This record gives sequence, structure tokens and C-alpha cells, in this order.
Amino acid sequence: MEERYVDLKSLQFVLYDVLNAEQLTQYEHYKDHDRSSFDMVIEAAKQIADRLLYPNYREMDKQESDFVDGKVKVHPVILEYVKAMGEAGMIGATFSYEDGGQQLPHLLQMAMNYIQGAANNGATMFVGLTTGAARLIKNFAKQELKDIYLPKMLSGEWQGTMALTEPQAGSSLSDIVSSASPTDQEGVYKIKGQKIFISAGDYEGAENVVHLMLARIDGAPAGTKGISLFIVPKYRIENGQLVDNDVVTAAIYHKMGQKCTPAVHFVAGDKDNCYGWLVGEPHQGLKYMFQMMNEARIGVGIMSAAIASMAYHASLKYAHERPQGRRLSEKDQKTTPQTLIINHPDVRRMLLFQKAVSEGALMLTAQAAFYADMLEVTEGEERERYQLLLDLLTPIVKTYPSEYGIQSVSAGLQVLGGYGYTTDFSLEQMYRDIRITTIYEGTTGIQSLDLLGRKIVAKNGKAAMLLTEEIGQTLQAALTFDDLKSYAELLQKEMGRLQQVMQKLMGYAMKGDVERYMADAVLFMEMSSLIVVAWMWLKMAVTAKQKLVAGGLDEESERFYESKLHTMRFFFHYELPKTKWLATRLMDDVFLTLPEEKEVIL
Amino acid sequence: MEERYVDLKSLQFVLYDVLNAEQLTQYEHYKDHDRSSFDMVIEAAKQIADRLLYPNYREMDKQESDFVDGKVKVHPVILEYVKAMGEAGMIGATFSYEDGGQQLPHLLQMAMNYIQGAANNGATMFVGLTTGAARLIKNFAKQELKDIYLPKMLSGEWQGTMALTEPQAGSSLSDIVSSASPTDQEGVYKIKGQKIFISAGDYEGAENVVHLMLARIDGAPAGTKGISLFIVPKYRIENGQLVDNDVVTAAIYHKMGQKCTPAVHFVAGDKDNCYGWLVGEPHQGLKYMFQMMNEARIGVGIMSAAIASMAYHASLKYAHERPQGRRLSEKDQKTTPQTLIINHPDVRRMLLFQKAVSEGALMLTAQAAFYADMLEVTEGEERERYQLLLDLLTPIVKTYPSEYGIQSVSAGLQVLGGYGYTTDFSLEQMYRDIRITTIYEGTTGIQSLDLLGRKIVAKNGKAAMLLTEEIGQTLQAALTFDDLKSYAELLQKEMGRLQQVMQKLMGYAMKGDVERYMADAVLFMEMSSLIVVAWMWLKMAVTAKQKLVAGGLDEESERFYESKLHTMRFFFHYELPKTKWLATRLMDDVFLTLPEEKEVIL
Repeated sequence: MEERYVDLKSLQFVLYDVLNAEQLTQYEHYKDHDRSSFDMVIEAAKQIADRLLYPNYREMDKQESDFVDGKVKVHPVILEYVKAMGEAGMIGATFSYEDGGQQLPHLLQMAMNYIQGAANNGATMFVGLTTGAARLIKNFAKQELKDIYLPKMLSGEWQGTMALTEPQAGSSLSDIVSSASPTDQEGVYKIKGQKIFISAGDYEGAENVVHLMLARIDGAPAGTKGISLFIVPKYRIENGQLVDNDVVTAAIYHKMGQKCTPAVHFVAGDKDNCYGWLVGEPHQGLKYMFQMMNEARIGVGIMSAAIASMAYHASLKYAHERPQGRRLSEKDQKTTPQTLIINHPDVRRMLLFQKAVSEGALMLTAQAAFYADMLEVTEGEERERYQLLLDLLTPIVKTYPSEYGIQSVSAGLQVLGGYGYTTDFSLEQMYRDIRITTIYEGTTGIQSLDLLGRKIVAKNGKAAMLLTEEIGQTLQAALTFDDLKSYAELLQKEMGRLQQVMQKLMGYAMKGDVERYMADAVLFMEMSSLIVVAWMWLKMAVTAKQKLVAGGLDEESERFYESKLHTMRFFFHYELPKTKWLATRLMDDVFLTLPEEKEVIL
Repeated sequence: MEERYVDLKSLQFVLYDVLNAEQLTQYEHYKDHDRSSFDMVIEAAKQIADRLLYPNYREMDKQESDFVDGKVKVHPVILEYVKAMGEAGMIGATFSYEDGGQQLPHLLQMAMNYIQGAANNGATMFVGLTTGAARLIKNFAKQELKDIYLPKMLSGEWQGTMALTEPQAGSSLSDIVSSASPTDQEGVYKIKGQKIFISAGDYEGAENVVHLMLARIDGAPAGTKGISLFIVPKYRIENGQLVDNDVVTAAIYHKMGQKCTPAVHFVAGDKDNCYGWLVGEPHQGLKYMFQMMNEARIGVGIMSAAIASMAYHASLKYAHERPQGRRLSEKDQKTTPQTLIINHPDVRRMLLFQKAVSEGALMLTAQAAFYADMLEVTEGEERERYQLLLDLLTPIVKTYPSEYGIQSVSAGLQVLGGYGYTTDFSLEQMYRDIRITTIYEGTTGIQSLDLLGRKIVAKNGKAAMLLTEEIGQTLQAALTFDDLKSYAELLQKEMGRLQQVMQKLMGYAMKGDVERYMADAVLFMEMSSLIVVAWMWLKMAVTAKQKLVAGGLDEESERFYESKLHTMRFFFHYELPKTKWLATRLMDDVFLTLPEEKEVIL
């Protein structure tokens, strides 16, 4: 079996067949594109991945980034990769022409990230962070700042970062203490503070590193509403020269995985010589940063789906090649030759789980990217609709691929047995790499509070109503096919169950008992995710069914669409039932995790 | 908060309060022991762990075992540790006096392994394997072999191993091809073959390595009934001297975790100069080896419970020390000082999950050890009862602690957020270490086939009936307490549900459709495990309740017993409901994982 890390056919199915990406080209903003320009982008992303990323995946783990003599060293291919991405115009692919971009849909950006993330997840962080940081500058910074930073960032010469976390303020951004003191020059501040866990936050070979950094202007109000956003470059420009801006790397963290991406601890302004340029209005920083954070959250979802894809293909190949044991139905267990392990139901169950998770996660992230595209091209009420849908989906897009991605990579490792635990195969690296994804950009706990505490209740539950409408369209389409009908009905029933849970929880919220309301938010997230991903699978199944009914397919295509139907059924029969225990727990009146019961945890 | 890796009080609660280990001393075999000698053993095991194991846990991971110039290097403290264990008489602690042991109960052996496994899991492999190998020799080898090997092994001078796996025969032992040709000397054979993944299979500093190796005698029947067991030492004795026995290490595997334990690939008989000594009768090797394997399976369960304990204490300490954010019920989110993360319900949920899994797993492994002890001291029908119970529990004891241990360590890592992913804390190492446990000594898939295909149906389901009786005793006791009554009833209901599932599955078996019968064996295993561990928690709760009702406790003890009740409730309210989705799946008539549907996995 050929070695692969991503299935382009499945990706194209999602983009073109299910989401009909070409419809986007009817809008002014995307009018210069068509199917063939989309395909070229995919092809180019794949070529870079094949040439630079996939072949160096193991090597970049072994030669992990390090901090030596005050310098952060990264694997040399990373520099090559970032340069290639800049040259191919892929860093700012979704930016408008005037900002130096290609006005490509987010769907295509997502496709590129997915392909390259499946080839080498850690390396793609460098580019993703620059894209996100540049977008913040593009959207909120003054033109003169855009003129300085955007060209250098989109070309890959300057690295972008998001600099939020401080030692005392991890998930709690309101406790940030980095400070910004006004100078004579308007919009320019003196910066002091420390940031930790700054991915790609410094490395030899980057001409400059541009931190999008949160800090408090002197006298700013306490809490999240006193936080401002600054551009804090490692080197600032003075008289056309890059001069040191007193942003000093103190250390890097060594990590279990994603070892090629340095997580930097830097100190700014220790010599009182660090300047930052205000982005947008004072005290509005967190609002702006949330734009980058939301993009990063979806990015983590894509990366997780991508690692799950890489693992799936590695396990599948192994299962197709490794003989071991005999089928249980085999009468002669002694002398019959061994069968391939893909013929053991338990192995097939693990593989189908991997396939259901990785392709379901792919579809989910693509759905979010599609909403992001609709945001670009619509206005008014229609635009608000897509904004609400995207906001609602974002924590799920961050969480399902990461939480279930970890499980599916673990299943993939299990498929290889003892070999999966050795460094002779790459599953162990994927297992280490993907573990960060439930922590990056807001842990699963934080995402779940966001979903239940904000997104579901925003605008009197309007977003949830809109999502129900969207799912309703899929149900309608599914009900027209005899063999999809029962699945549509099942999904409908599950949505009813979720509503019951929501009503039960709202009872606590009504009484102002917000701790009980939120206590099992993570389980509510899991239940919601399973239902949303079931929707994604049903949506894919409807398209596959339409293709099969239309006929005229060659045998390979027929098998391809049948496999989508089969995996949808697997999801509904093996995964969706998990909502049962989740609902049981969520409807339970007994809470055992409230701090009042502290003394019993020993 | 003080740093600890194991809670001796919980261990003693299980040994003395729940299982009443002292009752064993009424039997002739254990009559020389009493509570104070048991306590001394625990103390001694803890001292060695404190001195040699825990302080070197991280270091042994960094300086992983390696293969240099034909020699396997291990961390020097391992040699010290093995020596100390030999000197303390702990390698053969459960052996009879005449075989050089201390006639200690298995319960105490289990306690030692648990304590030391929680301190440094990889290191304990060296001792555990020697114990298991020596026990095989003790039980089945001729006296002259026992005289040669036992003293050297129990002293720690010679390392023991189990040498089963071959490149083409991982889980499928019937496909072993290593060969044994008779020589002039009775019981001595010439050995040829390769073995892989042999833990502790060679290292510098071991005076000798004694492989308990499976091979086929020339002309032996195909399949598992043609496999014999041999002692194949690295150095054999000739004229009182150790001479090379042509067992050559070809390589070692590098692993994701447990890096201090080399997994050796060796070649025996390449120079036609390797001799093996037959253990027991020809062709009966697998039967003998299963004794060691069952011991090793329980050992893996103990090790998993131990790693889960280490992780729980590390997360708990962090949660007690790390301030972050504010309680959701806090009105002033801006200026109130941050709270400790243990006050967040989501963090408490993860910690309680860790506690429920690690202490539940501890109780489960202790229950198995207790049955092993009853086997030593009973005869006839009574003995058969304990044999059946132990056989039935063994796959569960292997699987629940490993599968749920992985999840609980992952939850522990999550408690630390970004720090958990860095090498600044040890959670990432535990996360890597414990991942092997669902693979070692028969994967979860293999254990599940064993449970459903053999153990449940053996002797017309007699073992299951005996287990139901055992659980019944706990239910009886629980029903006498008002606040345990509902939990007893719940457990009873779950047992009924499991029986329904079993009946459903038996339908396939009756029709000879063994593939459908076994297709979801892993899910049947999970459901059974949850019910068995619920029993374990109820059993602990009954004891805790009895202590509380008896009264006269100091405040600390009262909190201790209350915490057991609380964690039992957590298990019943948060974990046991998982049986609902498992039952739904297991009762489902639609199978999607049978090989006939192969073409749809793409």
C-alpha cells in the first residue's frame, strides 16, 4: 500500500461536493477564482508538504528546537519552508489584493493548513501564527503600521506571534500585568513584561519576530477591559535600520511533542528600551485579540484533524500489510496462513473510529471555514447569521478534533501493537504531538465554558436556533432517501435530547447557580460535539448518496462514496450512542465537584 | 503541599480494612506473619522507592537505555535497585521458605509492586520479570534446574525474562517458529530463533540473563499445542564456569516511554551453540507460560494503577498550589485575588476522575491478589472457586487500570494546562510511560477475547456465577446502610443490564457466528470493567461506612473515610453511566466491522 498522510479525494469531496466551494466565486470578492485555481492552490500546498514537510517530520522531532548561547535554534528546513510559503503567497492567501493577498477563500486556506498539518503539524505553526498576527494588523492597525509589517510578514521574512500568556495568568487573561507607558509619540508605548509559551516566539534565521502582545496601559481599569494590544517587534525600525527592541528570550520550554516549534519565554523592557505600537483603540485589545484567537482555535481544530488523518493513513497501511493470527471464523487455526490484521473486527473498529473522527473533524473545520467565507461576502442580517453560526461552532471546532483526535491517534497506535510504541514508526510522535491540542488556545475546559456560558445563550439563543435550522436542511435532504431516513430521525431525536439537557441546565442558571450550570460544561461540550459531527456525517452521506443515485460512476468512485455512507453508519451506531451516558450524567441532580466538598479530595 | 507519589493510607485501607489481610495469617502457610511483619514489608519497599526509584524517575527517562558497541547500557541506579531488592528478599517474597522465599502473601507482593511502580514504573519491570520467571522455574522445572537458577535469580544477580514474541508472531503465539532440537543429554536442546520486545532482555551489569523461552521441538505439532518452554540463559554453566550460550542481542527498540527498560531483540543459536533446558513436559510450554503471563498481566494492572496514583498526586499537588481565575460564583471577577484551581469544578472533576480510577484500580488489583492468596491456602472445591474467580478477573485487572489509567493520566496532564505538556513537570513522562500498558502482555483486544471468549463461558459460566455471588455479598452489606442502598440497587440493575447483553451476544455464539459474538468484545470488556470497579468502590464504601458508624475516629480519619464515600458516589454518578452507551451499542444488530465490508475502508 502506498504511503500517504492525507486523502486529497476526501478533501475535495468536502470542498467541492459537500460545500460546493465553487459557489463562492459568484461573489465579487472571489470572482477571479475558479475550480482550477483552487486545485492549483491545493496542488502547490501538497507539493511543498511532500518536498519539505513530510520527509522531515521525524527528523524535526529528533533535532528539537533548543536554546543555546542565548539563541533559539530550529531545524533548518523550517526556514526553507517558511520562505517557500511566503514565495508561494500562501501566508496571506486569504488577504485582499490591496493588503498583498490573493483573496482566496478561507476554505482553501483551511485546505492548505490541513494538508500541511497532516504532513508535519509542528512546522505549520510558524506560518499559521504569522498569518493570524498579520490579519490582526491588517484589520485593526493604522496604515503606517500595515505598510511596515504586512509585506515583511506575508513574505515570510518576519515571524508573527500571539503573546498573551504570563506566568501568573494562563487561562485567566484578566490577570495580565505586562505594562505599557505612553511616550511623547502618539500610539507608541514603553513596554515591560514577561510572556510565556510563545510559540515560534524567537529563532535564529527569522529576520524579525513581531509579537502581537497584550499589556495594560498605565492606569487602565482592572480586568479584561483594561487590556490593550500592541505590536512589539524583536527589532524596531529606526532610521530605516532594524535595531534591538529589548525583547529578550529568557528560555524555551521543552515539550513532550511538537518539538520543532519553540515555546518561548521572553522578557520585554528589562533594559527599559522596549517599544510597542498600539493597535486600534486603548483597552480594546482583548476584543481584537479574540479575532486572532478564534482563528487560532479553528487552526488548532484543523491541525488536530490533520494529525488524525496522518495517523489514520499510517495505521491503515500497517493493517493492510501486517499478517497476524487468523479470522475467528477460520476452522483451521493451525495451518491456514495468517490473515492481515485489517480482517480482524477489533482492528477494523479502531480504523473506522479513526476514519470517522478524522474525516468528521475535517468536515467540521471545513464547515467553519465556509461560514468564515460567507462572512466575507455577505452583509447585514445575512452576515450576522454567519457570524453567529461561526461563533457558536468555534469552540466545538477547537474541541472535537482535539479531544477525539487524541483518542483516534491512540487507537491508531494500538493498531500497530508493540511496534506503535517504538520509534521505528511515527505513531508515537503523533501521539505526543496531538496531546497539546486540547490545551493550546484555551483548554477544553475554557472552550466548554465559552460554548455553554456564552455562545449558546448569546442573543437569547439565536445562534443555537440558526444551527438547528442548518441541521434541519440536512435532515430534509436525508429524509428523501430511504436508507438515510432512520439516521435523520435518530439525529432529530438526539437534538431533542440535547434540548432537554439544556432546559435542565437552564434551571440552574435561572436560579443564579452558575457553578452548577457550568460544572459539567465539558460533558455538555462532548454531547453537543457528537451531535454536530453526526450532522456533518449525515451531510456527507446525503452528498454521497446523491452521487450514487445519479450514477455513471466508475468502480473506484462508487467505492469511495459507499465508504462515506459506511463511515456515517459507523458514526451513528458506534459513536453517537455516547450521548446516552452524557445525557444521563447531565440530567443528574447530584453534583460532586463543587468546591464546598473540597475536604474530601485527599 | 507535600510531594508524594502514593498514599499509603489508602493502600493500608484496602489491605487491612477492606480485604482484612491479617485473616491470611490464620492459615498454616502464612502463620509466621502478622500485621507488623506486613507493615515492615511495606515500609521497606517504600524506603527503597524513596531512596532509589522516585528521585531517579526523570533521570532514567533522559538517560534512556541504549545499545552501544554490542552492549546494552541501562541507568546505573537500576543495578543498585535490583541488588537492594535481592538483599531485602523481595524478589522471591511470595516463594516458600524451601524455595528461598519469605512465604509472604501475594497481597503484600502487590503492595510492594504498587508502591515502587508509583515511584518509577520502568525500573520495577526488572524485578517483576525475574520474580515471574523464577516462579515458572520453581513450579515446573526439575530440582537440579531450580538449584542452579533460583538462588541466583532471587538474589537479583541473574535477570529473568519472558521470551515469547517473534517478528512474525506478536499476539499470535501459535505462529512461533523458534526451534529446539534434542541433544544426547535428556532435557537439553539446541535452540535456534529470534525473539523481540524482550523487556530487560539484556544489560551490562547483569551477571546472567535467564530467558524463559517458547520454542518448538523438532516435529512438534502445529499450533499452540506444539510449543515447549525452555530455560535459555545468556551464559550457561560448564564445569562450574559461566560460558557464552550464543544468545546475542541484535538491537534494542527505542520507545516512547519506559525508556529505562530495554526492549531487546535477540538471536539465539546463530553460531549453533545455544542450549536450552526443557521446563516440564514437551509441548506443554504455553500452558506453563500462561502462569507467568497471568502474573504479568496482573503486574501490568498494578503498574498501571501505580502510574495513575503517581499522576493523581502530582496533579493534586499542582491544583492545591496554582492560583488561576476566580470561582464562577464570585461577583467581583476583577479585583478579587485569584483562587486555587482546585476550586474550579472542572478541575475537581478531573481530579476526582483520577482518584476514582487510580484507587478503584488499586482495589481491583488487590482483590485479584487476595484471590491468589486464597489459592495458596485452600484445596479442592474451595480452591477451584478462587481459581475461577482469579481467572475471570485477570483480563479485567489487566485492562481497566491500563485503559482508564491512560485516560486518568491524560486528565492529570490537563490539570496542569500548558505546563503539563512541558518537561518541567513529570506528567508528560507518565503519559508516555503508561501508554504501553494496553499493549504489554496481550493487548486490550486480546484480553477482551479472553474475557468474552473464554473466561465468561468457561465451565458453563461458573466463574461469572461465582463473581455474581461475590458481588452479592457486597450488595447485602451495602443494603444495610441507608445512604448506600440506592448505590447497591444501581449496581444490581447494571448487573442485570450486563446479563441482557450477554444473552444477546450468546445468540450469535449459539448460531456459530463467532465473529459477531466477538466483534465488540472490547466494548463488552469496558462495560464489564465499569461494573466490576463499581463493585470495588461499593465494597470500599461499605468498609468506610462501617468505620464511620463505629465512630471514635479523629478528624483526619473521618475525612479519609468520607473521601472514600465521596469518590464512590463520583464513580456511580460520573463513570458507571457509561454502561448505557456501551449496552446500547452491544445490543445493536448492525455490525459494521466485519471483514466482508473491507472494501469500504479506504
